[in-house]
Amino acid sequence: MANNYQYCVDLQEVDISQRQAINKIILRVLSTAGRDAQSYGFGVDAMSSNNSTWVLSRLAIELDARPVADDKYSISTWISDFGRVVSTRNFELIKESGELFGAAVSQWCIIDINSRTAIDLNPYRERASKAIEDKPSPIAPPARMGKVTPTKSLEHSAGYCDIDFNGHMNTIRYVELMLDMIPISYLKSNNKMRIDLQFLHESLYGEELMVECEESDGEYLFEIKKQDGTPSVRGSFKFTAQ
Amino acid sequence: MANNYQYCVDLQEVDISQRQAINKIILRVLSTAGRDAQSYGFGVDAMSSNNSTWVLSRLAIELDARPVADDKYSISTWISDFGRVVSTRNFELIKESGELFGAAVSQWCIIDINSRTAIDLNPYRERASKAIEDKPSPIAPPARMGKVTPTKSLEHSAGYCDIDFNGHMNTIRYVELMLDMIPISYLKSNNKMRIDLQFLHESLYGEELMVECEESDGEYLFEIKKQDGTPSVRGSFKFTAQ
Repeated sequence: MANNYQYCVDLQEVDISQRQAINKIILRVLSTAGRDAQSYGFGVDAMSSNNSTWVLSRLAIELDARPVADDKYSISTWISDFGRVVSTRNFELIKESGELFGAAVSQWCIIDINSRTAIDLNPYRERASKAIEDKPSPIAPPARMGKVTPTKSLEHSAGYCDIDFNGHMNTIRYVELMLDMIPISYLKSNNKMRIDLQFLHESLYGEELMVECEESDGEYLFEIKKQDGTPSVRGSFKFTAQ
Repeated sequence: MANNYQYCVDLQEVDISQRQAINKIILRVLSTAGRDAQSYGFGVDAMSSNNSTWVLSRLAIELDARPVADDKYSISTWISDFGRVVSTRNFELIKESGELFGAAVSQWCIIDINSRTAIDLNPYRERASKAIEDKPSPIAPPARMGKVTPTKSLEHSAGYCDIDFNGHMNTIRYVELMLDMIPISYLKSNNKMRIDLQFLHESLYGEELMVECEESDGEYLFEIKKQDGTPSVRGSFKFTAQ
């Protein structure tokens, strides 16, 4: 069953275009996933007692518009597919008027906290079945991305404020490193956008990362690599005029 | 009159030591200032209609302990002094048991949004008087700091995710740049800490900043400078064994 979660845009979340910042919207989408999983008893806290945790594998989000300070909106979420290894969770972002302004599709795995390898989702099938709805994903699934041919790059050392309670680089901080390399004119524009993210290998505290960006007209491709060249995250940001 | 604001530590706010991250605690302190000012009708939104806004000039915070995930705590806040140019707002951080675990003192100015210069606080005196309590600051006022003799430094370009709705570098992002340069052993330890911050000149989107750090035993001094050498922020982090 799809559930709805309510949000209100705080002035602190607003970017220089006076709309909710892109990273803050993605944070709300991921929080919604956490809240919904928790409500059905398969949230991060329930999993940790089994020494396992959810890991985001891929995410795609499309935004046609963004709310401004004090705007209220809701995020509707449901699972459309609960496979043996991957669970697909969908999102619709809905204005107070009922109008859709964005949508997202995410793919999650469960890993063993110690070995950091994917485990079978089957033990959680019964609980997850209540969150499943026979409704297709609202947008195309997250793209699989290849290497980039960088036109610019930036070094970043994973610091105290980048990492979560497990010592791994936070999902949103990867997104922020990418956003910071996109010209502000695109981020301030009224263009529609589609973002694809693919999480390949976790980064740990102190790791030296290289953020590589390949820019072409209205399209920004990213690869965040570890020192030995292992890709940590890949991303694609596409902007199209309304 | 002092007012109390309630908080609960979310798992997402917890650092690698499993306690609420230092930057997240400072964010709560600053949010408390905003909420309290708003409740008396002199918050950021009320000021903006007069083309003026609050600017944090200095902050000192002492923490003896930090809460863990799901802990509830409250922040009590009051104004002890409302001068012609500076307002002094105080904070006590209180566990659910009633035990004090931290305290802070902040000094604020009001600036004209366009000219970015300090203006007279007098027009707000009547509203602010309700928030004043005849109770001294709980800790020593924020220190005035000089230049540092850097033992290490880092370049940082103020990006999309660093700036607020005015295009100025966010207070918390300065703190995060400093925290990321302190050895994690200190940030994970059970040491008491005192942090002093002094905000001197605002930084704008795209500015190239140099974060300079002078480290000695248990003490980290910072200066974040603009390209022309103008100091933007100075900070001091002191750790002492319990």
